[in-house]
Formats: sequence, structure tokens, C-alpha cells
Amino acid sequence: MNAEVLSIGSELMAGRIADTNAAFLSEQLQSLGFDVTRHTAVGDRRADIRAAIKEIAARADLVLVTGGLGPTRDDPTRECFAAACGVELVEDPESTRRIREMFAARQAPLPASNLGQAYFPRGGEAIRNSTGTAAGFAVRLGRCRFFCMPGVPSEMKVMFRESVEPQLRSAAGRATLVRSLHIFGLGESTVGERLFDLMAEDHNPQVATQVHEGVITLRLTATDSGEAAARRRLDETEAQVRALIGNAIFGADETVTLQAAVAALLGRTGLKVAFAESCTGGELSARLTDVPGISAFLLESVVTYSNESKIRRLGVPAETIERDGAVSAATAEAMARGMRATSGADVALSVTGIAGPDGGTAAKPVGLVYMALADAAGARVEEARFRGTRQQIKDRAAKSGLNMLRLYLEGNTA
Amino acid sequence: MNAEVLSIGSELMAGRIADTNAAFLSEQLQSLGFDVTRHTAVGDRRADIRAAIKEIAARADLVLVTGGLGPTRDDPTRECFAAACGVELVEDPESTRRIREMFAARQAPLPASNLGQAYFPRGGEAIRNSTGTAAGFAVRLGRCRFFCMPGVPSEMKVMFRESVEPQLRSAAGRATLVRSLHIFGLGESTVGERLFDLMAEDHNPQVATQVHEGVITLRLTATDSGEAAARRRLDETEAQVRALIGNAIFGADETVTLQAAVAALLGRTGLKVAFAESCTGGELSARLTDVPGISAFLLESVVTYSNESKIRRLGVPAETIERDGAVSAATAEAMARGMRATSGADVALSVTGIAGPDGGTAAKPVGLVYMALADAAGARVEEARFRGTRQQIKDRAAKSGLNMLRLYLEGNTA
Repeated sequence: MNAEVLSIGSELMAGRIADTNAAFLSEQLQSLGFDVTRHTAVGDRRADIRAAIKEIAARADLVLVTGGLGPTRDDPTRECFAAACGVELVEDPESTRRIREMFAARQAPLPASNLGQAYFPRGGEAIRNSTGTAAGFAVRLGRCRFFCMPGVPSEMKVMFRESVEPQLRSAAGRATLVRSLHIFGLGESTVGERLFDLMAEDHNPQVATQVHEGVITLRLTATDSGEAAARRRLDETEAQVRALIGNAIFGADETVTLQAAVAALLGRTGLKVAFAESCTGGELSARLTDVPGISAFLLESVVTYSNESKIRRLGVPAETIERDGAVSAATAEAMARGMRATSGADVALSVTGIAGPDGGTAAKPVGLVYMALADAAGARVEEARFRGTRQQIKDRAAKSGLNMLRLYLEGNTA
Repeated sequence: MNAEVLSIGSELMAGRIADTNAAFLSEQLQSLGFDVTRHTAVGDRRADIRAAIKEIAARADLVLVTGGLGPTRDDPTRECFAAACGVELVEDPESTRRIREMFAARQAPLPASNLGQAYFPRGGEAIRNSTGTAAGFAVRLGRCRFFCMPGVPSEMKVMFRESVEPQLRSAAGRATLVRSLHIFGLGESTVGERLFDLMAEDHNPQVATQVHEGVITLRLTATDSGEAAARRRLDETEAQVRALIGNAIFGADETVTLQAAVAALLGRTGLKVAFAESCTGGELSARLTDVPGISAFLLESVVTYSNESKIRRLGVPAETIERDGAVSAATAEAMARGMRATSGADVALSVTGIAGPDGGTAAKPVGLVYMALADAAGARVEEARFRGTRQQIKDRAAKSGLNMLRLYLEGNTA
């Protein structure tokens, strides 16, 4: 069964707000087993709305519509569906009664326009709105069923849950399950090459990649006759993916951030950490402290943005900075060792690099970053090169630092 | 001129994310004077994409397209446009050269798939991507012009600003100018009340508010026969707004962040600063260090996440913490004074509070934050209460700290 989403509202064309209703309804439709093929959004011009309704009716089996049901003059959904179906609007007495009751309960005068909300295309069915005056309606055009709901997200969601979802559930035949795997430290093209066969268009589960600020999310969508069969498909493909991608996978489903993965590992190891940051400017600790309860594991962090601060706060030898520079493997190591010694942490992590846009040289270009991790046994250093804006370089450097810590902690839980 | 937006990506059909690209581009198109009539989003099935391209080409004058330009197998935009136009894909040698250079700079092996990103429909024109490997392209189908950009919002926005917007600007007819004013420290309803008359629907310039993470942006959109006339309208309304809102306005147009405003003031005063953070966890310094060249003014920052760290790094008296608690006006003041003394900065700012979700009490609820600013003359403390998630409280506390510093610096430039 092929489904689409239609959103009606001039605010969407103005671009003030993103269409979160379409995202919500799409996710619901997919999890009910529908194949969602298109979203359409139009403003409040009647000709555009009627044209969209007719085109979609010729393509889709089912359409979820939001918006354009309010009482004001520019709320056109009822009218346009009546016109597209070639029928008139007729009153639903039950809806009129409910609107009157609602205003009476509020002891508010009833504007005449609100009674317009009780009129629906002939042949359609009103859908109750338990949170507002704008009732929805269901209507059929050819083989296509439309469910029209309010545009206010909170009202739409209640109406969907109470009245639309139960009807869809009985209509859908198959079970669709979705699973996400989150990856850091590999490029999208590398992931695409390793998973080439699994990403074929007709593979079930479907495997798709999405990149957001350096993190690649693999989305596995399995469809089968029942939930158990769909879950088996997911398990099998996940095992194949893990064999091909390895420990660059840091989380699944809800564990979408590196800091959440690190915090979970700190909880399991009981180790205390401290950070010495330079080019990340506090980003590393800002991200880890997004996790509730992290104060039990993070002792402190020092953003040593000047050489003087590296020397005074962390005991980095002035000669090291003079000889190798503030951005060097030797300085990174001295920062991590110094942070561990002065903080009393079990593990200290340091990051130093060139965030740009200025300050790069041929030998040390913008994006060059050194990270070091010190524990009781010693220190290790990693070099990385990042591209992008200053913010992107700070972000990737902070994520790489968290990832270095994650891999270290994973090695300490085995 | 009639414009549409087309978004390509299975992640949109999966409903995990709302289509913020369509919202952004719609707003840009409107402010350039285009009439935006429809948004369409499709997944990554080639037949669906080709059908959407052809339908839209028959309706629209201009289409902004995002997504489907990555290097992996499920990235189909280039192919589908070539098929819809009835032409083949041909290599753009300049794009190939740029991709090779980019990988060479990273010292990373170049996956063969990435070279596919240098192929575009014959007759199209490559659009340079200065932040990633996925170049865009412009192509014409009948009377309709398509501009295809990457789906990653940050890359798309840079490409739009650098390469697409300038072309659109020359194509639009009437002069529409937009100016933004950014406000921090007042509620949206307060702003709405003060600007009630200016926000009337038929006011020219239109004045609209938009709130994003505590920052209110006023968008003034003036339309007139020529640029000079539109600019006069903007100047006049801006003066009225400034009289009504005062120094809560921290920036205009491109100065969209508090950190940019603070950095500009540091440049003018030449003062050196240092931060002592607790509940913000590094967010304050992470945001200020987003500004290029800030290392000339920010000496260091210490995230004293434990009491021990506050005592050892900043010399906060243990008795103060014991008597008043780590979240108190006295501790905030001692942190700021201690930071100033140990860092050698002219001005030191401290933040301590309860970010939650746990750790609140009736006397000191989640969201209670103390900020202190110390200079040669002494210290001042402010108390604030924020609501929201842990991240929101961290964010608002960091912004309030930056705002306190901004107002202090403004007082020192007069």
C-alpha cells in the first residue's frame, strides 16, 4: 500500500517553520507497513490545493492531510476537497453540537465562522477532535482515501492516535521494523563501498545512510509478513553490517551520540576523566556534560587557549612548545600527561590543533589536530586532519576525542 | 516568478527528520521576491524522482533541489536529472580535480565512488561546493531552471549563499530587502507587545519574530520599487524598533550570535578575558571560540565540574562551598575573582548552577544559575532561573554569561 502526505498552509511556503507534521506522519505510516513515496506541501491558494489533491488521488492509495481546517477565511481544506470530489459541503449535526458545547463550556460567544467547521464534503466522514474545534474528515476520491487533520501538531497527533491510526492498523497487511546503527570515524563513501551489496535498492531490509555532522547513521528498514520475521531480517543484516564496519559503530537506535556511548562506558568502568582542550575550545567537555549525571565521572576540564595557560595549568614544558609548537604530538602528549597529574583523574585526554580559518601553514595546515590520551601506563597520541569551517573542525575534533576515549574504554571493559 | 522546492532522500520518507532545507530555501526565495507554490519530497526510488522532476518542470519557473548528491549507491539525483532531460552524464574535469585535491589534502585514499560526484547531466553546469566533495549543478528542462544542492544543511547553505543566491537575485523583479535584528534577554511576548503597531499585517516593512534557542530574531522585509526606497523603509523601522527594544538588541544581519558581538567588543576594548564554568560544562568557551581570531582575547577557561577543582584551580575557599553551596552567589563570585587572579585576565566571568534533570531542591531548583563578573574594580553577581531540558539550561546559561559580558564591554567602550 502506497501512501503520501499532503500539508496545507501558507506558513510552510513562507518557510518560517519546517514541516514536522509530515515527518511525524511519515514515520507512523512506515511503522504501520505503508510505503511512503512522497510529501507535498502547498500554500493556501485554492487552485494549487485542488490540483495537488487530484494529482495525488491518481497516484496514491492513502493520503494523510494536515492543515487548512481552521475557522478563518483563508482555511480552505474543506472547500477544496468538496470541489475536487465534485460535491457540495454539508453540515454534520454532531460536529455542530460539539462546537456549540465547547464554546458554552468556555462561556465564550460563538463566532459564526466557527460553525463553518461543521461542514464537510458530502460522502465524507467527520473525525472527532477531542482537543479543539477543528474536526477532521475522511473522504474517498477514486481508489484513494484521504484523512484530513488539523495543522496544529498537538491536535493532529491526538486525532491521529485516537481516530486515524486504528483504521490504518487494520488496513495494513505487513509488518515493518526499523533499526539504526551510528558510525563515527569512517567516510560515507567508505561505508557505501563496504556495504555495496546490502545497499542494493531491492535489498530487504533496505539499508540507507544519512550523515549529520560527521556521524553516519545507517537505517535498516525490514518488511515482512509479521514482526518476528521482520526482526529476524534486521538481526541478520545487522550482523553482516557489524562484520563489515567493526568498532566504528558506536551506538544503535536511541544511543545516537558519542557522548552517550562514552558516558555509558564510564559508568561500567568507574574511571574518572579530565580534559585538556585547546583548539576545541571547550566543545569536548560541553558535549560530554550534555549527559545527565556525568559529574560523577568528569572531574574537570581546562581550555588552555594560550601557551602560558598550557605551561601554568598543565605543566607543559615551555621548551616543548618552543621546539615543536603548540600544535604538535609532543605538546598534545604533555598536555594529557599534565592534565592527568594535576587533576587526579584516571584518564586524561587532550586535543590541540588549528581550527582556522587563519593560522595554517604548509607544514601545519588548518584542520591538523593532535589528540593524546594518558593513563597510568603512559600516553598515546593520534594525528588527524579535518576539513570544513572553523565550527566543523572544532566539532569533528571534539567527536574524534570522544571516539578515542570510547575505544580506550571499550578496551578496558573486555 | 513561480518557484518550488524539491527534496530528495529516503530519510525524509522515513520521517526521522523534518525537511528544514525546504523551510530555509522557501524563506530565501520569498525574500528574493519569488512566489513559492509547492514543496515536494521524494525518497530515493528513481522512478519517483524522475516523475517528480517532470511534473514540476511543467509547472514552475525555478526549482531549488536538495539531496541525493552523495557518493553512495543510493544517491540518485545526478542520474535522474540526466534521464529526465534525456541526456547522458558527462565528467566535469574541474570537479574531478577538486575531489582529488581534497582527498590528497587529507592524505586519504580516494574511493572510486567519489569520482562519480564529478559527473553531471550534459548541458548542465557544476556548482562548486567549498565545504564538501558533493558539487551541485544547475540544469534547464523546458522553461524551468533547476539548481541541485547537497542535502547536508550546512553544505547546502554555504552553496546557496555563495553560488545560487547571486544568480537568483539578478533574476527577480521588484526590490525586496530584508534586515534582521537579534535580541537576547527579553521574552517573545514582551517584544510582541512593544512592537504591536509595527507588526500589523499590512505594515511595510513586514516585521516578524522568530525564536531560536532563546534568541529572538526580528525580520524586517521591505518591498518597494527600487533598492534605495526599500532601504529607507528599513532604516526608518529599524530606528523605531531600537527605540522600543533598547540594548537587548545585540546584533543585526550577519552578527547573529552573542559570541560574535562579544568578540567585536573585545576587539574594540582590547581586554583579555577568562572563564570559570561549572554547570555550562564548557559551553561558554566553546561558543566564544567559534569566533575566528578569539585566541588574542580569550586566555583560558576552566570547567571546574567538581568542588575539589573549584578549590584547587581557582582558590575558592572550601568554607564558602560548605556554607553556601557550590551553586550560590558567593561561590560564583569567588570563582570569578579566583579565575581573574590565577589567569591574569582583565575580566573573568563565572557560571555555576543546576542543569538538571536531577540535583534540584525546593530552595535551589533545577535551572537556578549564578553568574559573576570580576574586573579590577571588584565583582558583580547575577541570579537567573531557566526552564527546559539539561541542554537548554546549559545553553541559556552560557548565552546569559556572554550577554552579561557584552553589556559590561559596551559600558567600557562609551
